[in-house]
Amino acid sequence: MLKGLKQEVLLANKELQKQKLVIYTWGNVSGIDRDQNLVVIKPSGVAYEDLTIEAMVVLDLEGKVVEGRLRPSSDAATHLELYRQFEEIGGVVHTHSLWATVWAQAGQEIPCRGTTHADYFYGDIPCTRPLTPDEVEEAYEHNTGKVIVERFRTIKYQETPAVLVAEHAPFTWGKDAHEAVHNSVVLEQVAQMAYLTKMLSGHDGPISKHVLDKHYLRKHGPHAYYGQS
Amino acid sequence: MLKGLKQEVLLANKELQKQKLVIYTWGNVSGIDRDQNLVVIKPSGVAYEDLTIEAMVVLDLEGKVVEGRLRPSSDAATHLELYRQFEEIGGVVHTHSLWATVWAQAGQEIPCRGTTHADYFYGDIPCTRPLTPDEVEEAYEHNTGKVIVERFRTIKYQETPAVLVAEHAPFTWGKDAHEAVHNSVVLEQVAQMAYLTKMLSGHDGPISKHVLDKHYLRKHGPHAYYGQS
Amino acid sequence: MLKGLKQEVLLANKELQKQKLVIYTWGNVSGIDRDQNLVVIKPSGVAYEDLTIEAMVVLDLEGKVVEGRLRPSSDAATHLELYRQFEEIGGVVHTHSLWATVWAQAGQEIPCRGTTHADYFYGDIPCTRPLTPDEVEEAYEHNTGKVIVERFRTIKYQETPAVLVAEHAPFTWGKDAHEAVHNSVVLEQVAQMAYLTKMLSGHDGPISKHVLDKHYLRKHGPHAYYGQS
Amino acid sequence: MLKGLKQEVLLANKELQKQKLVIYTWGNVSGIDRDQNLVVIKPSGVAYEDLTIEAMVVLDLEGKVVEGRLRPSSDAATHLELYRQFEEIGGVVHTHSLWATVWAQAGQEIPCRGTTHADYFYGDIPCTRPLTPDEVEEAYEHNTGKVIVERFRTIKYQETPAVLVAEHAPFTWGKDAHEAVHNSVVLEQVAQMAYLTKMLSGHDGPISKHVLDKHYLRKHGPHAYYGQS
Repeated sequence: MLKGLKQEVLLANKELQKQKLVIYTWGNVSGIDRDQNLVVIKPSGVAYEDLTIEAMVVLDLEGKVVEGRLRPSSDAATHLELYRQFEEIGGVVHTHSLWATVWAQAGQEIPCRGTTHADYFYGDIPCTRPLTPDEVEEAYEHNTGKVIVERFRTIKYQETPAVLVAEHAPFTWGKDAHEAVHNSVVLEQVAQMAYLTKMLSGHDGPISKHVLDKHYLRKHGPHAYYGQS
Repeated sequence: MLKGLKQEVLLANKELQKQKLVIYTWGNVSGIDRDQNLVVIKPSGVAYEDLTIEAMVVLDLEGKVVEGRLRPSSDAATHLELYRQFEEIGGVVHTHSLWATVWAQAGQEIPCRGTTHADYFYGDIPCTRPLTPDEVEEAYEHNTGKVIVERFRTIKYQETPAVLVAEHAPFTWGKDAHEAVHNSVVLEQVAQMAYLTKMLSGHDGPISKHVLDKHYLRKHGPHAYYGQS
Repeated sequence: MLKGLKQEVLLANKELQKQKLVIYTWGNVSGIDRDQNLVVIKPSGVAYEDLTIEAMVVLDLEGKVVEGRLRPSSDAATHLELYRQFEEIGGVVHTHSLWATVWAQAGQEIPCRGTTHADYFYGDIPCTRPLTPDEVEEAYEHNTGKVIVERFRTIKYQETPAVLVAEHAPFTWGKDAHEAVHNSVVLEQVAQMAYLTKMLSGHDGPISKHVLDKHYLRKHGPHAYYGQS
Repeated sequence: MLKGLKQEVLLANKELQKQKLVIYTWGNVSGIDRDQNLVVIKPSGVAYEDLTIEAMVVLDLEGKVVEGRLRPSSDAATHLELYRQFEEIGGVVHTHSLWATVWAQAGQEIPCRGTTHADYFYGDIPCTRPLTPDEVEEAYEHNTGKVIVERFRTIKYQETPAVLVAEHAPFTWGKDAHEAVHNSVVLEQVAQMAYLTKMLSGHDGPISKHVLDKHYLRKHGPHAYYGQS
């Protein structure tokens, strides 16, 4: 079942390694079939070079394994919470990519310092609050999803498809698994640029509001004019 | 038409990716035929691996598409302003390369801290002022070109073939597209060296005037003695 | 003799180079056969590309060469002290990998700043005290092992399989040579993340105790649920 | 003439590029035949991929071209001064490698912060004074050699085969061209380690004298025991 989606999620997982966002078995990508409400996700603890289409795990939105002989990623419950709450997304990525993780470890938002950031993310990359001891104890991965959703109460997840989980690392999403990986790659770039810019300038910016608007809106929405129609 | 120039601009664009100055569809290179006043430029939003000679777009100096089925780079109007005002240049490059972009995001000039910089750029790399809301609203890409030209009123563009656009990223130029890419590669190197030197020394320098003169002039102008005659 | 172990140690040594943890002849990996109390180790000063199974040196736990025509690594006495004192380990690695070495040169412990670290090391990476002039003079490599063991009096070596030797560089270990190399790769990652996090946040953390516990224990011990069973 | 030396110097030059110490035409390596007092050096401004054995230039110690159709490296006069004054060296390298150049641009010595440095260099890497306007005007490259030699009045060039020229970049040397390149690679590593260590610790060290002695002397001189005999 879901052969096309499995193939897409497999390739998206392998792309993470190719883009040097993960080593060993770190990180995971999933994709969802919104008609059937089924999610395909990387199995837990399997190296990227060993991943095959047969190794992919199919889950329903409550986390029940519908197909697959392997255990799903230990972060699956976080992915599922995002799919349940962010109804327009089709793919989710989790990595421990260097620069984004550094901001997450510092517990700081990534400020929008330039047009590279504004081309993809409509404002700062938010950082969640730390989880409480109870939240960690009780249902850690599910609650990780919940603090992400909580952080987005006043932010549109469609316009800022990335988040930092405090003390942990980033999650990104997109209309499908491929776009979610693309956003992870760009997040890593802007995380590094923002870091170095902060060290050089001694402050957090941000960019002028009119430049942010211009760059975000020339690539997104009804008045976009970047790329081919 | 302009087969030779298209080939040259195609290769120069692909070189950007090879030199790791761009990812995905970021950045763009153009070249001009000064006899016909026609510019060849990368199409908008096309990945470097998919670029072909047929995809190149030919524009006149007012921005009218003379040949090509694709939209030109969204930054084309900036390139055109540079070709109109800097009459001796034959190629223009725009990237979001990491270190140069960091200086641009900080809104700081890149100080000349050593002979690596002086071998190519006769003084600091200037940074434009930020664009005003009106300039962004009205004709963003054209006005980006205008603030660059404004910044060069007291600087010779032939001697300092690079600029930082504040909150944005660098542009470079040269006698042709190939040399403009070469200057982008060197700019990235000196941007990194200047950054790290500033962090180590705690100040902006600059280099001694007599060392700057010596290194620039042993490679450029009538008394140059670097390389083969 | 010990053909299987030699092959394993050979591959583990070559992996060090592939992972860019060493250049030229720097670094060394060993493995132990606990039944025979024999250690296989890299020969001294041999480049990784020239290493063969025949070049491997076999030592007993007192350092006597039991087989092999080449001299063992000059750091062999440190490895042996670790095998004698840390009875559950099967492999030892020494490198001068960049980021871990920087912390060692600064004489600072690597604080646990996030889950990437907590997934592998149950707390900060300890740093030894500097050796005294007498310790250096008398039996430098053996005493290097002794200050490591001294530092672990209050730390479980099974839970924190890495150490920094002050003014020098890291050692790691594991259940075999392969796992010891894996731990060296991860140490380098977390050393870089902790460095950059400290520069960004201006302090040493650490991570919340409940997040440290959760991540370490979901991958290690009787209640682990990461990976396949 | 000097076919073997030309081949050696050619390979050493190509190694610079392979080790990522140079781009384009930057940098140069030379080697000397001490019996004939003839130096083989890279031609000026030639890209590394285009270098052939026929392109190598042979000079006498006064700088006269004895063989070769191309101009020698514009830095040849610096190499020659080093060969004349440092009588035991057989090869010289000049690069603008990133981290060593950063220290040179800051005009700071590279402090010995750990055993990686001590294994190769017996103390800090010295930095010359800046050249005066007259020295630059009159005979720039020759005087660059002279300020290097001046800096080594109280340092043994055999024990510290590297120097930083202020506002410029490093030179290294060795018993032949190959060893000089090896020293350039190691210099770059220790320059980066020392930079990051200084930023982390907030001071310049240095390493304990007894550790410096131990590591330098276990690899060099009559009591060395590193490597194979």
